[in-house]
Formats: sequence, C-alpha cells, structure tokens
Amino acid sequence: MLNDWIKPEKPEAEELEQRLEEAKSKLERLQTRIKENKLPILVLLEGWGAAGKGSVLGRVIKNIDPRFFDVATMEKATEDEQRRPFLYRYFAKIPEAGKFMFLDGGWMTDVTNGLLHKELSRKEYEKRLASIKCFERQLADNGYLVLKFFFQIGEKEQRRRMDELLEDKNTEWRVNDDDLWQNKHYEKCKELYDEYMEETNRSRTPWHIIDAKNQKWAQVQLLTVMIDAIEARLSAGMPEVMIPKNKFALQTMPKLKDIPLDKEMSEQEYRIELEKCQNRLRELHNELYRKKVPVIIAYEGWDAAGKGGNIKRIAGALDPRGYQVHPIASPEPHEKARHYLWRFWTRLPKTGHIAIFDRTWYGRVMVERLEGFCSKNDWQRAYNEINEFEKELHDWGAVIIKFWVQIDKDTQLVRFNERQNTPEKQWKITDEDWRNREKWEQYEDAVDEMIEKTSTDFAPWYVLESNNKYYARIKALRIVIKKIEEAL
Amino acid sequence: MLNDWIKPEKPEAEELEQRLEEAKSKLERLQTRIKENKLPILVLLEGWGAAGKGSVLGRVIKNIDPRFFDVATMEKATEDEQRRPFLYRYFAKIPEAGKFMFLDGGWMTDVTNGLLHKELSRKEYEKRLASIKCFERQLADNGYLVLKFFFQIGEKEQRRRMDELLEDKNTEWRVNDDDLWQNKHYEKCKELYDEYMEETNRSRTPWHIIDAKNQKWAQVQLLTVMIDAIEARLSAGMPEVMIPKNKFALQTMPKLKDIPLDKEMSEQEYRIELEKCQNRLRELHNELYRKKVPVIIAYEGWDAAGKGGNIKRIAGALDPRGYQVHPIASPEPHEKARHYLWRFWTRLPKTGHIAIFDRTWYGRVMVERLEGFCSKNDWQRAYNEINEFEKELHDWGAVIIKFWVQIDKDTQLVRFNERQNTPEKQWKITDEDWRNREKWEQYEDAVDEMIEKTSTDFAPWYVLESNNKYYARIKALRIVIKKIEEAL
Repeated sequence: MLNDWIKPEKPEAEELEQRLEEAKSKLERLQTRIKENKLPILVLLEGWGAAGKGSVLGRVIKNIDPRFFDVATMEKATEDEQRRPFLYRYFAKIPEAGKFMFLDGGWMTDVTNGLLHKELSRKEYEKRLASIKCFERQLADNGYLVLKFFFQIGEKEQRRRMDELLEDKNTEWRVNDDDLWQNKHYEKCKELYDEYMEETNRSRTPWHIIDAKNQKWAQVQLLTVMIDAIEARLSAGMPEVMIPKNKFALQTMPKLKDIPLDKEMSEQEYRIELEKCQNRLRELHNELYRKKVPVIIAYEGWDAAGKGGNIKRIAGALDPRGYQVHPIASPEPHEKARHYLWRFWTRLPKTGHIAIFDRTWYGRVMVERLEGFCSKNDWQRAYNEINEFEKELHDWGAVIIKFWVQIDKDTQLVRFNERQNTPEKQWKITDEDWRNREKWEQYEDAVDEMIEKTSTDFAPWYVLESNNKYYARIKALRIVIKKIEEAL
Repeated sequence: MLNDWIKPEKPEAEELEQRLEEAKSKLERLQTRIKENKLPILVLLEGWGAAGKGSVLGRVIKNIDPRFFDVATMEKATEDEQRRPFLYRYFAKIPEAGKFMFLDGGWMTDVTNGLLHKELSRKEYEKRLASIKCFERQLADNGYLVLKFFFQIGEKEQRRRMDELLEDKNTEWRVNDDDLWQNKHYEKCKELYDEYMEETNRSRTPWHIIDAKNQKWAQVQLLTVMIDAIEARLSAGMPEVMIPKNKFALQTMPKLKDIPLDKEMSEQEYRIELEKCQNRLRELHNELYRKKVPVIIAYEGWDAAGKGGNIKRIAGALDPRGYQVHPIASPEPHEKARHYLWRFWTRLPKTGHIAIFDRTWYGRVMVERLEGFCSKNDWQRAYNEINEFEKELHDWGAVIIKFWVQIDKDTQLVRFNERQNTPEKQWKITDEDWRNREKWEQYEDAVDEMIEKTSTDFAPWYVLESNNKYYARIKALRIVIKKIEEAL
C-alpha cells in the first residue's frame, strides 16, 4: 500500500483554506446525527514518528463538542497491561454509541515495533495479525465505524522535524528512541508497514494514507475521509452483515434432554471428596500463580440449578488474593452502549489469576436472543464471535472452563418454592425467574444450539448434572483440577 | 495500642470450634439484611507479614456469597497509581452499597513502610496521616462501615512462619523483602505501628487487634467483631452525623445577583485575544507536562450559560494527548451505589495532565440538594467534604480552577428559544432544562451558599460573566493561564 501509494495533489492555498473551512463546519453539523443514530466511531491514527498526528488530531477535535469524543495516547503497555491479552487495552478503549474515540497510535505500532525490535518472533507477529483482523471485523460487524489513517512523510522530512523538536526543551520529550530508530531504519520500517497495511486492508476497515507534509492539507484529507464515511453510514445505514461459516473444530455434544440426571452422591462421600479436591486445587492455585497461568471459569445454567453453591466450593479452595468472582447482571448504560464483549474483556484476569464468571458472554445467545435485546443477525453472528474471543484467550495461554449447570424442570420448581418459603433465601427468587421458567422450552433450544456451536476443542462445554448438588460440585472441582493440571 | 494491648484469652478447643461455627452461620444469615439495607462494608486487614491475613481472609469469605464481596490485594503502587494522589487507589476500591470489600493491606502499610524505608519524610508522613483521617471519617459519615483489623504475632513466631514459607517453592513468593526487613527491625516497626494506630483510632473507625497466633482463634475474633458491628448498625441504623464547623479560610464572595453582567467584548477584540491566550496556554501545557503538574478545571453554571463553548476554547489550545474532558451526567447505578466523590476520584488526571469537568462534584449541593437525591445532613456536610477533597488535590500539587458561568434569567430564555428553534442545537435543550429554569431562585440560593462555603484560598471560585460569551471565554483563558503560571 505504502509502496504503490500515489500522493494526492495538494490544492492551492486558497482552495485548501476553503475546503478546510467547509469540512470543519460539515463535521460540526454531523455531530447531532452521530449522537441521534448512536454511531460509535473509532479513529485510529498511525504513521511515522513526528508526522504530526498529534497536532492534526488537536485541530480536528476542535470541531467536535468535548462531550462527544475521547482521545487516548497508547504508550508502552504498563506492567498490568502486559499481564493481559495484547488487545485488552485496545478493547477497553472502544467508544460508546454516539461518540468518537481517537487513538493516537495503536495496535499497528504495537505489533510492527514488536517485530522490528525483535520482541516478537515472526510467528507471534503473524498470530497477532490474525487477532487484529478478528478484532477489526468484530467491531465493524457490531456497528462500529473504524477509520484507520496512516500519516506519511518522507525520510528527510522526518529527520528535519525531529531535529526541530529536539532543539526545544519543551518539545524534546515528543521524540523518543523508537522514533530515532525508525528514522535510521526508514526503508526497513516502510517495507513492514506496507506489508502490515496490505494484510489488514479490508473493505469495511480500509486504510487511508494521509500525505502529512503540510498540516492543513493533512487535516483536509483526514476530515474528508471521516465525513464521507460518516455520511455514507448515516444515509445508507448499517450494511447487512454476513453470518460467517464456522471454522472451528467442534465437539459432538448431547442435547440437554438426553442427559441423564440421576447421578447421585451421598453427603458422606461428598464431604470426603470435597476436602480432597479442595486441597488439591489449593496446591494448584499456588503453582498457577507462580507460573503465571491465567484461568477463566464460566458458569451458565438454569435459575436455581446451584451455580452459586458450586462457585462457592471452587472459590473456597482458592487464595482470595488470586481470584475474583464476577456476578454478571443486565448491563449498565455505559456497558450497553458498547460491544457486548466489552464488559468481559475489561474483566479478564491477570496472568496467574483466576476469574470466575457467574453468568457470562453467553447471555448474548440466550437472554438477549430470547428477549429480543439484540437482532437475529447479532445473536447468530455471536457464536463465531464468542469462539474467536475464547480462541484469543486460549492463545494468550488461558485455561478456559465452561460449565452448564443442568437440572430438570421439576427440580427447579421444588427449589423455587423452597426459596420462596425460606426468608433468608427470598432475595434469590424474583418474578423474572418465574417468567424465565415459563420459557423453559425456548431456553432449552437456545442452550442446545449454544452448546452445539461453541464446544470448541480449546473451550468445550462441561455439563454438570445438578439435580444432586453434591455430585455437581465434585464434578466441577474434578474438571477444574484436571484442566489446570493439563495446562501446568 | 499495640504496646498496651492485652492478649485476649483463647478458649479451649471445643469451645473455639463451637464459637467458630456459630459465628460463621451468623455471618451467612446476615448477608440478606446487609443487601436489603444497602450497607457498604470496608474491611481493612493490616498486620505483620506472615501473620496469616490471607488465609484467615480466605476462610472468612467462604461464608459469604461471592456476589456480595470483593477482595483486593494492595501491592506496591503501579507507575500509573504513583502519578495520582496516594489515596486514589484506595478510594477507587470502596465497595458498593450492600457489599463487602476486603482489602489485604492498605494505606497503613503504605505510609508506615514509607516512613520506615525513608521514602517519606516525617512531614510527608504526618500529612498523609491527616489525609487518612479525613478519608476514614468521610467514609463513616457517608454510611460506610469501616472495620480495621491488625493481625498481631510476636517476633519469633513471625520468623518461624517465614522460614516455613521460604522452604517451599510454591509458597516462597509470599515472603517479600519488606517482610524480612520487618522481622529484622521488629521493635522499631512495632513502635511506629503503635503510634499510627493510636493516631487513627477513632470511635467510629476503631482498630481491632487480632491475636493471630492460632488461625481458628483469629477467625473467631475477626468474625465476632464483624458480626457485632454489622448487627449494631442494622439494628440501630446510621447514627446522626455532625455537621463539622468550617476550618478552612474562605474568601469573601459577592452574591450572584450583585454581579454586574454588562461586561462586553467585541468579536474583533475576542479574535485577537483568543489567539494570544491560546498560544500562551499551548506553551504552558508543554511545560506542565514536562514538570508533571496536574491541573483540574471545574465548570458549573446555568443551563445555556456557555460552559460547552468555553471549554472548547480552553481545550482548543491543548495537546489532545494531555487532557481529558469529563462530561458529568446523572450517576449510573454503580456510581450511585458509592460515595458521591467516587466517580470524581476515579477520573482524576495523572500528573502532567489536565482534567476538565463539565459539571462536577458540586452537583451534591445543587441538583442533589434541590431534587432531594440526598438528605439534608448529606448536603450540609458536603461543603466540608468537598473542601477536604480539594485540599487533598491541592496538597498533591494540583492546580484547581473552579468556574461558575453566570448569566441572567432573560439571557437564558433567549438562548433556550434559540436552541429550540435551531435543528442542530435541539439536542442541547431538554424538558429538564425548562424544569430547572422554574427553580431559578432556589438554585440561586444554593449556588450562593455553595460559593460562599467553598471559596477556599487553595480552590477559590471564579465567576465568568457570560451574557457576552466572548468576554467569558477570554476571562476563563486568562485565569487558567495565570493560575498555571503561578504554579510553574
């Protein structure tokens, strides 16, 4: 892309001025419509050091009400960020519906620098490239307008600008060692950038190269692309998104109704096994911590199936400093305004830690599907998006364990009634539980489809037969132990 | 406290077991009431290294539903945390209403270690101690149950335990250099801990020393204190909180109605001044960044007074990588469930950065007061709490600039009508704006009281006469420039 880029012709001073003014006021007028249409816009600014991304950005945002945008400068990942999947800090930054997020530097800088400075092997680089493609596609599929710009300047121009910045003690901090290295290895860098951009240049998330020699002209180019893309989206609406074919190997799973629920365990056996399993898990937790392996345990299941009690027995074996339970309720406004995986990405554990999710991202293909909180296309696409998400976590090194806690409809009724009649347990039962119960058959279909489509090799579902809670708890503990042992 | 502590008598094995079981089930039964009464509980565990805080904590939380508590281990402050006020990371961790937060180590460890390892001077230590007292009192005043425990073991016992942990490669990471140093300087540490605890032992946030020699006994002691405190609060309710006398020097400020609003500025003069001021502010922003001075600009004012346009002119001069505008709307559920300053603490800038708040923490004494979203005691107490908050920021080194954007009632009407009649501006005007306008006089009284009680020397209010927006914008820019110049 960079190699065969044809520099656009810069207009004369007067025309430039006029076009700039027009573009500015156009963007200003578009704001209301962006807000009304709840369009989230992610603007990624990449390019050469000293190409003037910051100062162009500073001017562009002057035309936007500060309530409608945010700017983030992506510096080197902090120690905490380094202990998460590499896309974590970018996913955390995606804008809310109706707002802009401008990223000054991003995942392109990250991975190309990683390869150039030999912090990433070619293989790791390729893997990250694949992750990036998924990430960008997922954003586009979920309604995000993703605008990617590369600020282009020549080798000599870059050198000249850096020298200028370095002369003044108020601006010298803007030039870092990477920038200097980049200029010294300009051609090598250019080759890689070109390759990266070719690879990631997709029809819905294309690259836009900006001739950044002249600052006003750069502004005009950037604004024009932004305005055209926003107007096109606002007038044509969100294009129909294809439901991708499944590309992951799936395990064959039984239907819920075919799973025998007669598994029993006596209290006596349970007590003995519980102690044994918890002791073993306790040891493993120490080892996990030391070897910095992250673990993600996901719980889904019928209301009153015994998720809470099951989680308690896992958590009971863990050092409280090394795990966290995330109860997932309906999303709050700032969560609902973003990609549905956002609130899970931002809750991922650090390496060496365990995150237990009490209800999960699978809400998308259960409650959100059945209650109509998302479109049909949305939840049908979600199976693949979720598989990709879990693949990402798996590749990062996480142990992923997914439990479906299964009971039959009669057992649920018994437990609902018990909760209703026990004062300390009444908070556990709500009208919504009763309403969900009426939709048992619809839920059963949705769960069967979910288990069928998301039991991948790297993150299979485990069904916990929980008519007998003792049995289910010990089964869960044994699976957790086995999966962790395999990983260590 | 530690020096004159009398070790409680440990019961015999059988009684111990019985009391432990009783305490556990009591805590379990209390959960529902804690949730119903929306009681937030902060449990701080401090004490000697290897005193067993972690393992006691691990056992105590087994009796609580994982949905109702969180645990945080406070390790060394990260680089990012070090660029915020020192209480930032603790304030960020306070629990939601109806939940527990257990902190394994906290601000006591921070400041005592700081002094012991000579990272803090005696004077800095004293200052932090004062901040801590404010912090704990504010939490208690705002309904938090703050339970502070110190786990006590003797010098030899500590040595023995550390040796044991160090022998096993799975546990050796639990002993860090600070722990070893502590054991070597046991007496010196004990002196300081005693002094710290004396200083911070207040009737509503008292210290509880736990004899930690025996783990089960430690559990019983901890659970007993917790249960007693929770039961007392649940049965007696929140005690009446005193409105503290003002202890800050206040500036004499005019009433809003006495402020002449006839200030004018021509567009021509405005254009010239704007460029001059923005250029100067741009230079200063670089210098701020380099010298790592944080700046907080707070905007309050009548609807349609011109806050947005004013902020745009400040922001327009700034490097987008070094500032953030925080539009403040009504709190989301997770924000409403915490201390009202929580959402501002968590939005504080890093050193060297600028945070601009479009509406602020003063909502407490304006909209929350007038709409009855908090009690009379709450908003009356808030003047002092806010002054303390701003003092904390000032002591941290922040430049604090507070603007009240003032217009008269007729001007507001003209602007409301203009907004109503201009399609691109309609989003700016809502029914709520019209309702607020009907309460103009009540708001005026509240604002007068607010300005009177919170114009401290370190964070005075500046009124921007904004019937003429040009005048108001230039005045704001000049004040910002002056305040930053003074600080640099």
